[in-house]
Amino acid sequence: MTTLRRDPITGRWIVNTEQAEQPEKAQALKEAETCPFCGGSEALTPPEIFALRPKDSKPDSPGWEVRVVPSSSPALRIEGELNRRGELMYDLMNAVGAHEIVIETPGHIANLADLELAQIEKVVKTYTLRVADLKKDERFRSVVVFKTYGGDVVRHSHSQIIATPVTPKNLKEELNGSKDYYGYKERCIYCDIIKQEMQQSKRMVFENESFLGIAPFASRFPYEVWLLPKKHSFAFEAITEKELPFLAVAFKTILKKLQKLLNDPPYGFVLHSSPNLREKSGYWQTIKYDYHWHFEIMPEAAESSGFEWGTGFYLNPTTPEEAASQLSQVEVNF
Amino acid sequence: MTTLRRDPITGRWIVNTEQAEQPEKAQALKEAETCPFCGGSEALTPPEIFALRPKDSKPDSPGWEVRVVPSSSPALRIEGELNRRGELMYDLMNAVGAHEIVIETPGHIANLADLELAQIEKVVKTYTLRVADLKKDERFRSVVVFKTYGGDVVRHSHSQIIATPVTPKNLKEELNGSKDYYGYKERCIYCDIIKQEMQQSKRMVFENESFLGIAPFASRFPYEVWLLPKKHSFAFEAITEKELPFLAVAFKTILKKLQKLLNDPPYGFVLHSSPNLREKSGYWQTIKYDYHWHFEIMPEAAESSGFEWGTGFYLNPTTPEEAASQLSQVEVNF
Repeated sequence: MTTLRRDPITGRWIVNTEQAEQPEKAQALKEAETCPFCGGSEALTPPEIFALRPKDSKPDSPGWEVRVVPSSSPALRIEGELNRRGELMYDLMNAVGAHEIVIETPGHIANLADLELAQIEKVVKTYTLRVADLKKDERFRSVVVFKTYGGDVVRHSHSQIIATPVTPKNLKEELNGSKDYYGYKERCIYCDIIKQEMQQSKRMVFENESFLGIAPFASRFPYEVWLLPKKHSFAFEAITEKELPFLAVAFKTILKKLQKLLNDPPYGFVLHSSPNLREKSGYWQTIKYDYHWHFEIMPEAAESSGFEWGTGFYLNPTTPEEAASQLSQVEVNF
Repeated sequence: MTTLRRDPITGRWIVNTEQAEQPEKAQALKEAETCPFCGGSEALTPPEIFALRPKDSKPDSPGWEVRVVPSSSPALRIEGELNRRGELMYDLMNAVGAHEIVIETPGHIANLADLELAQIEKVVKTYTLRVADLKKDERFRSVVVFKTYGGDVVRHSHSQIIATPVTPKNLKEELNGSKDYYGYKERCIYCDIIKQEMQQSKRMVFENESFLGIAPFASRFPYEVWLLPKKHSFAFEAITEKELPFLAVAFKTILKKLQKLLNDPPYGFVLHSSPNLREKSGYWQTIKYDYHWHFEIMPEAAESSGFEWGTGFYLNPTTPEEAASQLSQVEVNF
């Protein structure tokens, strides 16, 4: 059985899967034949969970604009009880969760940066709808949207969504850090960062009415960019209809800049957003005030040298000031 | 200038280097010509910091058994003051530290597993001497020994040692977790794990008089093995002369098993040991009782799918029970 196991020392959760292959690789193998993500190939994926499609069209038929299907080799499975339990001093539970693929266009286009602006808006809209829907399931603590582009990943623009019954350790660290800062200052740390970055301006990559792209002060990777809403908001899915077009422009601009400056590099991005709140619990009761959702975008994040892993330090040869300066100067038109 | 920058939210430290290449890759390039780590090529490395060599032989001449040199492209530099400072809400300091290469044999042998037992004992002895020496420098909080084998790394058995002026985040997490457990149970969590693993025996990989190899309950990677001293000890460099041969046997056996079972896989290992204590400070005052040094050995650790990075979850298709069962059955003779 697929289980979630907790490291007793650090609290890190591990998914022990049954399959020998990792999901993305399994999908890469299929690509050699027919791309299962193209419009017209709907029969090659599991039945769709959701799609933006004309009202008169049937599920799993052509005509869709954005389509969401279950992963064909999911890391976590939607059925079953969590069955949290101990094994002497260890803790484990069933690997219950959701693992979905967001197919971002019916056309065989590899990079989200190359989609039309209106299409990118539909993609981010789909993210919000799926996150909101998955958060209705009380078994899930956290819903993460993430993308990996390039390398051996399917060359058809798509993202993944994982809903997990535990809070991922890196999110928990951010929540704790934000909470500590709020306890001390009674201000959101991300709001303070945004204010300082706008004043200093030397790490600014992009700005529009609602969103900001910055090269973070302690960038782990060269040309890392954080995309944040200017207005304080702890939950991504609470984004308004009015803000969606601004988010699409922000994504398109930042991804195009990276594509042009770094010659179409592999990249990944991850949504960092509030976990599923339990209204009655006092745990993280200040989260609405102290946490601030954002996307972290990282070119070539998949490359790691063993150095980071060995020492726990990231080694970054490009300062964020240099990265921001270069990215700001790249002109993109669309 | 090379700086250490602190992420204000999570407390993670990043090294912003000046060089465009990462240290190991820079060294890999040189290999195409003459291996700078071979006996007789001493002039191709910076002057040695330490060597196990006959008393009548000169530094940087042939005849050594294990040789330690500064990295030719160090991530951190030994000269200078830390100059801890703020930049408005951010924290940074000069990237002062040490970055050394332990050349584990004068012969051009790639894998530590293939060295003679007596030679491996000299290697681990060298680790202890360098760690103890670097800990004398009060600027350094943590000294990490680590190895990456395979991939594009120089094919001459060597490890790296990094001394850092801040405690790496992953070590701090372990220290905090161990402290919490001790506060609750008044026992070392690693000692409890050792006891339980020896009783359950299903995750045991190796055992001798002084050391234990286990596949940890929440293994991040397939065939991950932790190598721990049976006797409680918080600091690696406090290992006794009597224990050294047992540690060499443990390393040789575990690395040989991995080599045989997985067909000479790339692997890495990292020393997790107590940071530099400040006797007069109350910080981590219980560390002597609650922390337990160990090595974490991971085959193919360099491969990551973007999934881990995206979600904060490690996906491991091999259970530690299966890994331990397979590794236990591999017979190695030396």
